[in-house]
Amino acid sequence: MAGDGEEVRNKQVVLKDYVSGMPKESDMCINTESKIKLKAPDNAVVVKNLYLSCDPYMRSRMRKLDSPSFVDSFKPGSPLSGYGVAKVVSSGYPNLKEGDLVLAWGTTGWEQYSLITAPETLLKIQHTDVPLSYYTGILGMPGMTAYAGFYEVCTPQKGERVFVSAASGAVGQLVGQFAKLSDCYVVGSAGSEQKVDLLKNKFGFDAAFNYKEEPDLDAALKRHFPEGIDIYFENVGGKMLDAVLANMRVHGRIAVCGMISQYNLEQPEGIHNLMSIIGKRVRMQGFLAGDFLHLYPKYLMTVLPYIKENKIVYVEDIAEGIESGPAALVGLFTGRNVGKQVVCVAKE
Amino acid sequence: MAGDGEEVRNKQVVLKDYVSGMPKESDMCINTESKIKLKAPDNAVVVKNLYLSCDPYMRSRMRKLDSPSFVDSFKPGSPLSGYGVAKVVSSGYPNLKEGDLVLAWGTTGWEQYSLITAPETLLKIQHTDVPLSYYTGILGMPGMTAYAGFYEVCTPQKGERVFVSAASGAVGQLVGQFAKLSDCYVVGSAGSEQKVDLLKNKFGFDAAFNYKEEPDLDAALKRHFPEGIDIYFENVGGKMLDAVLANMRVHGRIAVCGMISQYNLEQPEGIHNLMSIIGKRVRMQGFLAGDFLHLYPKYLMTVLPYIKENKIVYVEDIAEGIESGPAALVGLFTGRNVGKQVVCVAKE
Repeated sequence: MAGDGEEVRNKQVVLKDYVSGMPKESDMCINTESKIKLKAPDNAVVVKNLYLSCDPYMRSRMRKLDSPSFVDSFKPGSPLSGYGVAKVVSSGYPNLKEGDLVLAWGTTGWEQYSLITAPETLLKIQHTDVPLSYYTGILGMPGMTAYAGFYEVCTPQKGERVFVSAASGAVGQLVGQFAKLSDCYVVGSAGSEQKVDLLKNKFGFDAAFNYKEEPDLDAALKRHFPEGIDIYFENVGGKMLDAVLANMRVHGRIAVCGMISQYNLEQPEGIHNLMSIIGKRVRMQGFLAGDFLHLYPKYLMTVLPYIKENKIVYVEDIAEGIESGPAALVGLFTGRNVGKQVVCVAKE
Repeated sequence: MAGDGEEVRNKQVVLKDYVSGMPKESDMCINTESKIKLKAPDNAVVVKNLYLSCDPYMRSRMRKLDSPSFVDSFKPGSPLSGYGVAKVVSSGYPNLKEGDLVLAWGTTGWEQYSLITAPETLLKIQHTDVPLSYYTGILGMPGMTAYAGFYEVCTPQKGERVFVSAASGAVGQLVGQFAKLSDCYVVGSAGSEQKVDLLKNKFGFDAAFNYKEEPDLDAALKRHFPEGIDIYFENVGGKMLDAVLANMRVHGRIAVCGMISQYNLEQPEGIHNLMSIIGKRVRMQGFLAGDFLHLYPKYLMTVLPYIKENKIVYVEDIAEGIESGPAALVGLFTGRNVGKQVVCVAKE
């Protein structure tokens, strides 16, 4: 396939300009004119992208970020980039060969083929008896986020009361299932009846509620946690966080994974109930999965058997074709996706 | 002294009613009519109060608190209570005898004499070659707060950049000195030139600023911490916390000890920069000294030599006479005190 410099057309999802407010499909365009040589130079690989991951953190990269930040801004006029599953089509890097499947840890382009000049960031996929797309979700960054956030940051004890927001999302659905495997009581919130149904009937949450139908979040939490919350896995921020702070138990823990409700606001909402963390000795901790990559092999060994034995299930929302990328990404911020949002660029 | 039921007059500082907004001296009154028998019943002691501690957390007890809370409301019509140094004048409790000096851990009354019915909460003072009043400060709850908050919660490393707000107060002045003893760079904020001078010239802070003279707290912090803050010892909350959140370094820690700027507001100010704790993986932790009481003997053994060798200094603001109690307590919230505010009820 990779002749000495065969050049092919390479469709890309390009950011047109920095975005303010809610991102729209029209903030991106499909560039059909770009071309790429399918021959990798030394110490680089060329990959064919199969599955691209739509992740909320990508919103921050659509604005001009002050440096230093933990991520870079996307470059207007260039394709987006992120996590994805890809196949090596040409390798100038000794540790990878043509045909290898890889998980790009935040480093592949939103395009059909990518030249990866830092191939040491690619993780070679060893286990292919599960859906390949899972490496953008349960077997990738979101999975590690749920695992490290729940076990390492929240340090759960049997019987503790766990609350997860955005609970049917890529990360939340796993946190809830980990919590049940740890004999915790777990309640999730989500934004539609369909998602609430998934939480209760597919992921095994003890209870769930649709936050859009709750005029008083504090009352909703008090109904589900009359004795308070030990662990909050924070995905949304804003009013939900404020309501949770008013309902934490002594020595509670809050793993701050994301605050998706705030990403499109010019000025984030104010949080008013922080003072309560003193008397209740609450620990609130921001974290990124990338700090726990040393646990990834252990995580895979733990979660692969659970998947095969159906002890953990994973719901994905797969959009077909790279042209669907802008809509799929934008949909994260209106909650259009049900489960982990993936873009399938090619099946193999 | 303690005849079989000798009854003496017992002046008290009484809370008149629950307080909203900024507390005023007139929210309290001096009751000169109360009497007390100086003979302790079985399993109780009667103490003569020598030094009473004025602590910001007492503000919360002046309002009607929802239960459960980590403290109870004061009872309108009854004396305040809190931390203090006292002398046993009559004992029905085998572990204490007449003449013993004790540190009451939150449990003595704002009055000349108190009947203590839970004498097991009293810590017998063993070291009397330091000012007795220190047991309300550096050798008491504020000292343990600084010690546990800095060493246990903030886990400082040599060379780290530490910021302390309310830095000349009972706790802050110690945090700054502990930070210097740990080879950290430490900057403090306070509310007057006199206090800033103390920070720099008496407590050995590397730098200090008067927050009231800084129109832009973010700019003030950037001036003192061009590379950001590793450790923030939080005593004030509100706008200062928001400015600090914007200036934390990756893997920074915030020990949340108090938020004195918020205690008299009907609705706490909103905190807008919490989202930054995700990308920077900041840990924010509320704590109370009471959770670290097991470390108190170790702390005393550490700090007593430092005091005697003048390696740590401690500034107190001592109001004379129980009648000065209301003004002393209220003064905490306007920053009138310079150093640890104590009320001296009697010298012995």
